[in-house]
Amino acid sequence: MRPADYLWASMPIPELRIETTRGDLVESVHRVALAVVDAEGRLVASSGDTNLVTWWRSAAKPFQALPLLEDGAADAFQLSDEELALACASHSSEPRHLSVVSAFMAKVGVTEEQLSCGVHTPLSPAVAQEVACGRAVPSPCWSNCSGKHTGMLALARHHGWPLPGYHAAGHPVQQRILEVLTRWTGLPTREIRLSVDGCTAVCFGLPLRAMARSYARLGASTQPAPRRLLGAMSAHPFLVAGTGRLCTDLMLAKPGEIIAKVGAEGIYSAALPRLGLGLALKVEDGDNRAAGMALLEALRQLGARMAPALGELSAPDLARHGSQPIRNTRGVITGELRAAGALRFSAS
Amino acid sequence: MRPADYLWASMPIPELRIETTRGDLVESVHRVALAVVDAEGRLVASSGDTNLVTWWRSAAKPFQALPLLEDGAADAFQLSDEELALACASHSSEPRHLSVVSAFMAKVGVTEEQLSCGVHTPLSPAVAQEVACGRAVPSPCWSNCSGKHTGMLALARHHGWPLPGYHAAGHPVQQRILEVLTRWTGLPTREIRLSVDGCTAVCFGLPLRAMARSYARLGASTQPAPRRLLGAMSAHPFLVAGTGRLCTDLMLAKPGEIIAKVGAEGIYSAALPRLGLGLALKVEDGDNRAAGMALLEALRQLGARMAPALGELSAPDLARHGSQPIRNTRGVITGELRAAGALRFSAS
Repeated sequence: MRPADYLWASMPIPELRIETTRGDLVESVHRVALAVVDAEGRLVASSGDTNLVTWWRSAAKPFQALPLLEDGAADAFQLSDEELALACASHSSEPRHLSVVSAFMAKVGVTEEQLSCGVHTPLSPAVAQEVACGRAVPSPCWSNCSGKHTGMLALARHHGWPLPGYHAAGHPVQQRILEVLTRWTGLPTREIRLSVDGCTAVCFGLPLRAMARSYARLGASTQPAPRRLLGAMSAHPFLVAGTGRLCTDLMLAKPGEIIAKVGAEGIYSAALPRLGLGLALKVEDGDNRAAGMALLEALRQLGARMAPALGELSAPDLARHGSQPIRNTRGVITGELRAAGALRFSAS
Repeated sequence: MRPADYLWASMPIPELRIETTRGDLVESVHRVALAVVDAEGRLVASSGDTNLVTWWRSAAKPFQALPLLEDGAADAFQLSDEELALACASHSSEPRHLSVVSAFMAKVGVTEEQLSCGVHTPLSPAVAQEVACGRAVPSPCWSNCSGKHTGMLALARHHGWPLPGYHAAGHPVQQRILEVLTRWTGLPTREIRLSVDGCTAVCFGLPLRAMARSYARLGASTQPAPRRLLGAMSAHPFLVAGTGRLCTDLMLAKPGEIIAKVGAEGIYSAALPRLGLGLALKVEDGDNRAAGMALLEALRQLGARMAPALGELSAPDLARHGSQPIRNTRGVITGELRAAGALRFSAS
């Protein structure tokens, strides 16, 4: 490998990346691997290695929630669209999130003690500050994954499966979810890697292309379960993430056009139903801010090439997620945080 | 460029890097460019592009402080070793740092209003929490660069130069410092790039190899000014950084053997005086934690190859800066944060 490929040196890298600049130098770089595919899995656009196998993290949540609808649990418990949205959420632990989780848990008849997800610093900076300063104490239902976990408990109850250990790979809930994944990813079980996620539930590893294809298929599906699930996410963007979060702001700006889901360690996946496309990306170093900027830039470039309406991402609430001037401690602008490089578009 | 070089894909990258793992996959990667050279500039070991031109940030501080000694300002103001250490510091704003800054400023006869550095979140997590929870209010002398700025004011006073604007590129203080840099880096002025640092003072851009060579020369020098400066840093590791900081813990563990200085955006430089070597590294994405781990790993590999005593970095206080298991919200170990890859050693 040539050293110049290893670190960006002084030559521009053509691939999509997020950069910080200071003066006339690029100071830091976040590399982006990205795949945009259609429901048949044909590559439309890319950056870096589209075959990269990595952990899907929370971007798998819609598929982890799908059995609730497919198996009739959502009907049996009379789950609302808000509760379905929360089952797909990496929420910010704001009061409204906690309120919907609470109602969801009550409908399913489970208590916090039965949740396997642990406590963590809330994703909302404001809520995190309350916790840090001793003015609030988080509990398991504050976990950003509490909706997902409540959904898993609902599935277990619905099927009459035991509740304890519902999060573990061998449990029927996780086996059912894995079955759903094989169908939507088009991958055999043996090609879907398993590990333990931050919240202790099963975490899935697969190629970026397969992630993108799953989202393309989900967005293109006419079946009632995916349609209701995506409809719930689109109707309740706040519940899927929270105040000031990119998924929320993006889905508020482009209702129904983009269904976006973040994952830890620099992951995003998105369905673009009107275009019949799915997108998946990974920032190499795991930086979440860079991942959001990469998503916005990819959508802009896709829009410019394929669908002007998609590319109109100038809504004020999206500006804060995009390129920014970098200011020092005296407010002097020293450089910028920006997207750079270009997607490769496949011959069509 | 082959896509597989752009993102790490499934093949191992030989160069030094910091990785996080989850299950059996590498989940995120921080690439490292690194140069180890001797005082003549001969390359001893490397990773990535040793010619990478990047901003030196706070790792330039010893050179920015050197004129205090060379020009007689340290003698004229009767600066203590503590104050010299603080002039080189990116301190954590702990009470002892503030106390030494205060004494330093008093000796020089300057007040906070004359400091150009701005306010920022303290580098000490404990102090930052006090600020975040409204129990403390930082002021300019809390800035991690306040020692450096006080030193610059001291130099201006000593020479009879005007104090206002001492931080700006055209001011005699900054011109004098640039002169010092040309001598130690061996680079002509036109090859040292200038920009504005986070604290508003001048920031220098140069190749990693030149940074490393400067530190090698500094460590090897028998002149009184560098010897006193490095002696001050070595004698007061706490003042150069702070509680739980790698520079401090490293210099406490290896007094006189390693003089290490961190810089923002994934920068470290270090002198290894007994070996006559200097080291400089940059983490591509700017991650500071990864930079510290890369420094430790590079020292370990250098030690294994060249100097066993150097490589003995098993002191308990250093363990927390090295490889760590990654635990999820339930305390389950899901992977690790670790160094990987190897330095290339030049034929000697």
